[in-house]
Amino acid sequence: MGSIKPRDMTVNRRILEMEYAVRGPIPSRAAELKQQGRRIIPCNLGNPQALGQQPVSFYREVLSLVEHPIRIERERRLKTLFNGADLHGLERDDFHSDYVLELSENYLSQLETGMGAYSDSSGPRFIREAVAGFIDRRDGAVSGSVPRSDPEQIFITNGASEAVRYVIDLLIDDESDGVMIPIPQYPLYSAAIKRCGGTQVDYFLDEESGWAMDRNLLDSSLEGARKRGVTVKAMVVINPGNPTGAVLDEETVREVIAFAGDNDLAIIADEVYQENVYDADAGFVSFARVLGRGDVPLFSVHSTSKGFYGECGHRGGYLEIRNAPRIRNTDLSFTDLVLKQASVNICSNTVGQLMMYLLVNPPPENTAPYRRFTHERRKILEDLHDKAVMIRAGFDHMDGVSCFGRTGAMYLFPRLDGLPDGTDDFDYCMGLLDRTGLVTVNGAGFGQQPGTSHLRIAFLPPREVIEEVLPKWIEFHNAYVN
Amino acid sequence: MGSIKPRDMTVNRRILEMEYAVRGPIPSRAAELKQQGRRIIPCNLGNPQALGQQPVSFYREVLSLVEHPIRIERERRLKTLFNGADLHGLERDDFHSDYVLELSENYLSQLETGMGAYSDSSGPRFIREAVAGFIDRRDGAVSGSVPRSDPEQIFITNGASEAVRYVIDLLIDDESDGVMIPIPQYPLYSAAIKRCGGTQVDYFLDEESGWAMDRNLLDSSLEGARKRGVTVKAMVVINPGNPTGAVLDEETVREVIAFAGDNDLAIIADEVYQENVYDADAGFVSFARVLGRGDVPLFSVHSTSKGFYGECGHRGGYLEIRNAPRIRNTDLSFTDLVLKQASVNICSNTVGQLMMYLLVNPPPENTAPYRRFTHERRKILEDLHDKAVMIRAGFDHMDGVSCFGRTGAMYLFPRLDGLPDGTDDFDYCMGLLDRTGLVTVNGAGFGQQPGTSHLRIAFLPPREVIEEVLPKWIEFHNAYVN
Repeated sequence: MGSIKPRDMTVNRRILEMEYAVRGPIPSRAAELKQQGRRIIPCNLGNPQALGQQPVSFYREVLSLVEHPIRIERERRLKTLFNGADLHGLERDDFHSDYVLELSENYLSQLETGMGAYSDSSGPRFIREAVAGFIDRRDGAVSGSVPRSDPEQIFITNGASEAVRYVIDLLIDDESDGVMIPIPQYPLYSAAIKRCGGTQVDYFLDEESGWAMDRNLLDSSLEGARKRGVTVKAMVVINPGNPTGAVLDEETVREVIAFAGDNDLAIIADEVYQENVYDADAGFVSFARVLGRGDVPLFSVHSTSKGFYGECGHRGGYLEIRNAPRIRNTDLSFTDLVLKQASVNICSNTVGQLMMYLLVNPPPENTAPYRRFTHERRKILEDLHDKAVMIRAGFDHMDGVSCFGRTGAMYLFPRLDGLPDGTDDFDYCMGLLDRTGLVTVNGAGFGQQPGTSHLRIAFLPPREVIEEVLPKWIEFHNAYVN
Repeated sequence: MGSIKPRDMTVNRRILEMEYAVRGPIPSRAAELKQQGRRIIPCNLGNPQALGQQPVSFYREVLSLVEHPIRIERERRLKTLFNGADLHGLERDDFHSDYVLELSENYLSQLETGMGAYSDSSGPRFIREAVAGFIDRRDGAVSGSVPRSDPEQIFITNGASEAVRYVIDLLIDDESDGVMIPIPQYPLYSAAIKRCGGTQVDYFLDEESGWAMDRNLLDSSLEGARKRGVTVKAMVVINPGNPTGAVLDEETVREVIAFAGDNDLAIIADEVYQENVYDADAGFVSFARVLGRGDVPLFSVHSTSKGFYGECGHRGGYLEIRNAPRIRNTDLSFTDLVLKQASVNICSNTVGQLMMYLLVNPPPENTAPYRRFTHERRKILEDLHDKAVMIRAGFDHMDGVSCFGRTGAMYLFPRLDGLPDGTDDFDYCMGLLDRTGLVTVNGAGFGQQPGTSHLRIAFLPPREVIEEVLPKWIEFHNAYVN
């Protein structure tokens, strides 16, 4: 077909300029190597099941039943048939517990129209109520100092990414509108801001203090933006941090809320790693809890992709709005316009909705699946922590590598000092990939202090893979820098 | 909390102005009535399973197994145990066929990382290959006059809506860029164009010729837009039509392609209703097939939500690109930038991906599930046709109602002549809802010739519901207009 010359055209410049390193040239190179038969260890994404993490059985049991409801009755019959009888080599665990069977029926009866129908655009009301209950229990809203979560301010979304886009797309009208984002950041934020033509306003995290937030750095970032004529509408906080893993304490959350309140900013709280806190003396503190009855607009997002659940492919998430702003010169609220956006998308996928329902409704202590569920959860979180520790220990053997702060989320973000002149962290990550098969993302993809170099690695590969590949990385590293 | 006055802010004006009647004030009113205990018949959306259509068993069997893979081996054991023995009240159909068990295993082995992992951003390669195979078989690409579909030009998406947004968002840089859309249209298109700040360029369909496309109407629409300084980049064609149900014949498709070619436009072909053609002498003709080796850029979208599958909640869709334009002054193609957008979203949901795989891989004739699958498919499509015929017959008893053209897609779009002065089709639909519980969407939500009134009804309720409600509608109608 060499005779046909493709037409050319101009396109949306914002999409043309948008960048997203997590799926950029390094993973593309990895895909090429894989096609050539090389073993690839994809640590560029927080994608646990791609690296062998097993799904939590409870979730999949329910999912399997609600997707094929006539099986529920058959499972009951099978249980009766095999009850007390010879199991013919089958195990008791091969049958669903009554709890799972009843939960599945109950879910379907609340859903009314099954898994194959479009739901309400914001997700079925009973799922939003369940999410509100989860938030209230987590934040102690029953005690009174924290208002209860309102299901009408909750949206079930295709992962947290969609929730973030709903908010940022709406906040930004043109390039004079800005959103503050941490540096380093998860590049969804820079991409979303770029895509809708807004201005990205960077605030730096203090690496050597464990990627701490610092009021002076926030003030100077905001002041600089305002001097440039930018109307800053909101600030993004990622807690636990991505890529940094830093976990904010209550005092810091309080200071951030004060900063936002003083400056009339909304807060976008990315709290998708709230279960991924590994240090016994650090705990997750939600923005909603510390906000209490304060009036700062808060958009918090969560996801079924992270934590111990790791159900990335099912794309479940939620957005919860507090203190929804009024839209100037209208009788509408911000929430009304998020709903309009969700309506045009019709609804999020029903399996992601189910996953979110199960995430906020784990099996209670007195139920049959409790023990196994709890065991699987603990095992996954312990494994994650152990693997982070293993990789951190490897850094001690790499010249000029330092990894600041606590371990949180699913990532380590070490600093690479002393890279040879003329090379940067992109070259380093490409070299590391070529030499070891490890796919990482270089620091520039997240943003970093000028003159510094980093990489982000998801600490997800199986232990034996880490044990095998870490010495090769150390060897590569020390040869690279020396 | 009356003491806190919500903050107010300005927001994205394009989202503020965007409209989407399919989930607008009429469905909102319906939700209120439902909360008051009224029976509601939601015909505002093409959402078959919400109105009792049963899912195709084959799809759900496979889905249920791949989501809980350890069950595959258990099912094999159960089959062996019950083989030839007393079934204890269970039926042969209560067990999966070997075909389904093997297909599920095979799917998982091609997927490599299971349903819980993020996939490639455009969808797993083997699914894109399967989609390409489906397109080639459908269009006779094996014979040579139609080029084969290229899996690298295919994206698996969260429903067709996401696919449409990828294309329109990229086509439009600012308000000087326009996209032609049919009037009446499915309001996803007007909303997507509004949202990204482009210009909607209407072209009218000729109602009394059965909603035909007309080269003169296309020419005058384009000419008018160009005179207003609009750079028209593409035209949308919905075939079979939504809301009109019109099915384009090969000659019309050829003329549309010639028009696009003459005027340097890309074609966005919404072909999600390609299975929903009911007249024996009308057949679906794809744009790709008629395009053949022509050089017009073509974006065609399909969905797992319509046809006989009706798996709306699972949000599966695809975009296929032919003759991807080059991006001016770059070495990139349009496809590269769609991929970038998909990358920021990480990937579509894996269940929608599976549904699309199954849609393009129905059980072959020599397999166990074939007979049942074929029976279910025929039954669903026959039911849809019968229900459309029933409702059309009702129009004959309504004064001033005419419904032009063939029956296609899932909708009827009758014209309502002689509405009383001072009322319009919105008032009519609200009255119809209040009186009968039928949720429809008024013609203004889709666009119509000035001075005319219409409504769109999805012909999806069970027959007995139609039989019961149709006389009430006739009574309401004749009282309303007389």
